[in-house]
Amino acid sequence: MTWAPIPPGSGFGIENLPYGVFAPPGRRARVGVRIGDHVLDLRAALGEEEFARPALNDFLARGREFWTATRDRIVELLTDRGRRDRLGDALYPVSDVSVRLPIEVADYVDFYAGERHAANLGAILRPDSPALLPNWKHLPVGYHGRAGTVVVSGTPVTRPCGQRRSAADPAPVFGPSRRLDVEVEVGFVVGVPSALGKPVPTADFEQHVFGICLLNDWSARDIQAWEYVPLGPFLGKSFATSISPWIVPLDALTAARLPVPPQDPEPLPYLRDSRPWGLDLRLEFALNGHIVSRPPYARMYWSPAQMLSHLTCNGASLRTGDLFASGTVSGEAPDEFGSLIEITWNGAHPVRLPGGGTRTFLADGDVVTLRGTAPGPGGATIDLGAVTGRIGPADVQP
Amino acid sequence: MTWAPIPPGSGFGIENLPYGVFAPPGRRARVGVRIGDHVLDLRAALGEEEFARPALNDFLARGREFWTATRDRIVELLTDRGRRDRLGDALYPVSDVSVRLPIEVADYVDFYAGERHAANLGAILRPDSPALLPNWKHLPVGYHGRAGTVVVSGTPVTRPCGQRRSAADPAPVFGPSRRLDVEVEVGFVVGVPSALGKPVPTADFEQHVFGICLLNDWSARDIQAWEYVPLGPFLGKSFATSISPWIVPLDALTAARLPVPPQDPEPLPYLRDSRPWGLDLRLEFALNGHIVSRPPYARMYWSPAQMLSHLTCNGASLRTGDLFASGTVSGEAPDEFGSLIEITWNGAHPVRLPGGGTRTFLADGDVVTLRGTAPGPGGATIDLGAVTGRIGPADVQP
Repeated sequence: MTWAPIPPGSGFGIENLPYGVFAPPGRRARVGVRIGDHVLDLRAALGEEEFARPALNDFLARGREFWTATRDRIVELLTDRGRRDRLGDALYPVSDVSVRLPIEVADYVDFYAGERHAANLGAILRPDSPALLPNWKHLPVGYHGRAGTVVVSGTPVTRPCGQRRSAADPAPVFGPSRRLDVEVEVGFVVGVPSALGKPVPTADFEQHVFGICLLNDWSARDIQAWEYVPLGPFLGKSFATSISPWIVPLDALTAARLPVPPQDPEPLPYLRDSRPWGLDLRLEFALNGHIVSRPPYARMYWSPAQMLSHLTCNGASLRTGDLFASGTVSGEAPDEFGSLIEITWNGAHPVRLPGGGTRTFLADGDVVTLRGTAPGPGGATIDLGAVTGRIGPADVQP
Repeated sequence: MTWAPIPPGSGFGIENLPYGVFAPPGRRARVGVRIGDHVLDLRAALGEEEFARPALNDFLARGREFWTATRDRIVELLTDRGRRDRLGDALYPVSDVSVRLPIEVADYVDFYAGERHAANLGAILRPDSPALLPNWKHLPVGYHGRAGTVVVSGTPVTRPCGQRRSAADPAPVFGPSRRLDVEVEVGFVVGVPSALGKPVPTADFEQHVFGICLLNDWSARDIQAWEYVPLGPFLGKSFATSISPWIVPLDALTAARLPVPPQDPEPLPYLRDSRPWGLDLRLEFALNGHIVSRPPYARMYWSPAQMLSHLTCNGASLRTGDLFASGTVSGEAPDEFGSLIEITWNGAHPVRLPGGGTRTFLADGDVVTLRGTAPGPGGATIDLGAVTGRIGPADVQP
């Protein structure tokens, strides 16, 4: 039982304790842990220099033993009533602080690990072929995205310009994207690096990965459709990727772990999970405050341990701050799909918003908010926080 | 005329002055400029703190005015005989120092800007379709690679393992790549960042890009062939990318500039070069000391200014240390091709090595060295240095 004030129904209880970077008014950014509707300044509470930095990276580099010890110390501080007065100055209302990008992102990789999403996209974009490509059930398909444009929740997203060419266009045209979309994803944050040339087995997942965040992989479908052969997505994705500010440690997710759905064919040995790393995360995609869908993460085909093992099986090294994302999370029903191209079936069935508006893709001024929760120990709820972004008009040169 | 010793025929004269990071024996890494077969320690010679760092990034972030002023000061120091004695301690024989990765790489993007290379790959991999895909002449096709595995020349390259599946295989197999290849490329190093949401026009190329290096985009063709649909190259490339240690400033390349070949159709307005940024670089690909090909960079279809403008046209921001590469440089003749898959036409025509060996793709123990030169002012030669790597056997777990 913590002495810190926890509002009824909060998913930021003592079982959660996610890490982020925040700045008190007029002061420098630093590392904190969220508890209820407050943030605990970890430099003030614990003393370590790692927490005085404007990014989690130095803390993340310390490794699992230090992560667990730190969590234990924070739980002790927050449950020992004798500390209450001394820690008062280190506790800020979350509404008084500004949150920052929690990690300095090293490399960003985006996977494509949801079967229903991959099948939906296949059916929409390649209707005359099998929905899944031949490699899909043998390896977690992925690609590198732009690390420098990963932004924290709340950062405005400018509608990207780019080339597009529809079947009717005699030549490509340049202009603002007309098919700006959302991808509801979960991001995994790497803390401990690995050596070049040394693959990381699935069993070592917990030794390298610290925790998770929500991630919106904004996608300009028209730009992507024209550019992506043969080298994959580039400008259709690289304009912005938004993440939630509070990195939830794997230690808070033990009650959420479950096996991934059955994998057939059986994966090659380097991809076999030694322990279950599926996650029972319930996600939510809201457009202008209206919930459009509730994607269930538990249905994801490839586990994050499998993604990590695949990412390094060629000897590619990890760095502190590497971020890899799951790919779009889509359940079986349209109100469980994690992108507008799926929900509207490529624009054929617009989403109806309260008040009479409809959307096929995002309009300027739209606000997208992704939220998520996980089951915690003893019936508690683990809140994954939110990642939000408002679409601003394209910056078109006159 | 410099007082520094310049061996006859050296391409590291006073017209070149490339920047790198080096460590004298038993001492910390720092920034230096190469002159002849020596390195000038810039912290010792000029005093600025930027030069005491183990990466060029802080220097690069200062921008073009500072870059030009620094170059002018170095020329002055190296031509004023009165400085000779005082600078003696700051000058190290290049054979006595170890070179390091010159930049902390932010994002790494690899383009595909050579027409002959793209056409060769199209003809080899998709023999029944037009050699160039429909987008190729409208935009510089590119994708993000792994920044964390960019390594400096001399770093051993471990043969990557991965999944591959040939037409005859009933299922994919996992193991060491059998089709390990080279891609002869040129890299461009970004110094000055740009703001999120603000495209960089071609006219601003020089304000952001500091200089160039040689780059070997090692490629595992079998891994790439199985993984790359629909999201592009991933593990087939991410195990290692090698760059030369000396970053040649654009200021040293004025005599090498020339227009790119005619572009038809005319590019969209955002891709029109205001000034010529084609480069007359003569490259060389040597396998175990034997020159296999001489790719001519002057034939590249898209200019680096066009690549930069395309990369940012969706509002993606630049960071100091961003690196983008040209894609494989291939001329018209097989002895001008920049990869083994082209030179051997997918293995059909093995390369013969002196002493009787042949190669289709790289063997363990092979040493690949790429070199390059550019014309300098007044008939001088600008040496781009070399990027080399030896293939080590795969790290196969027993």
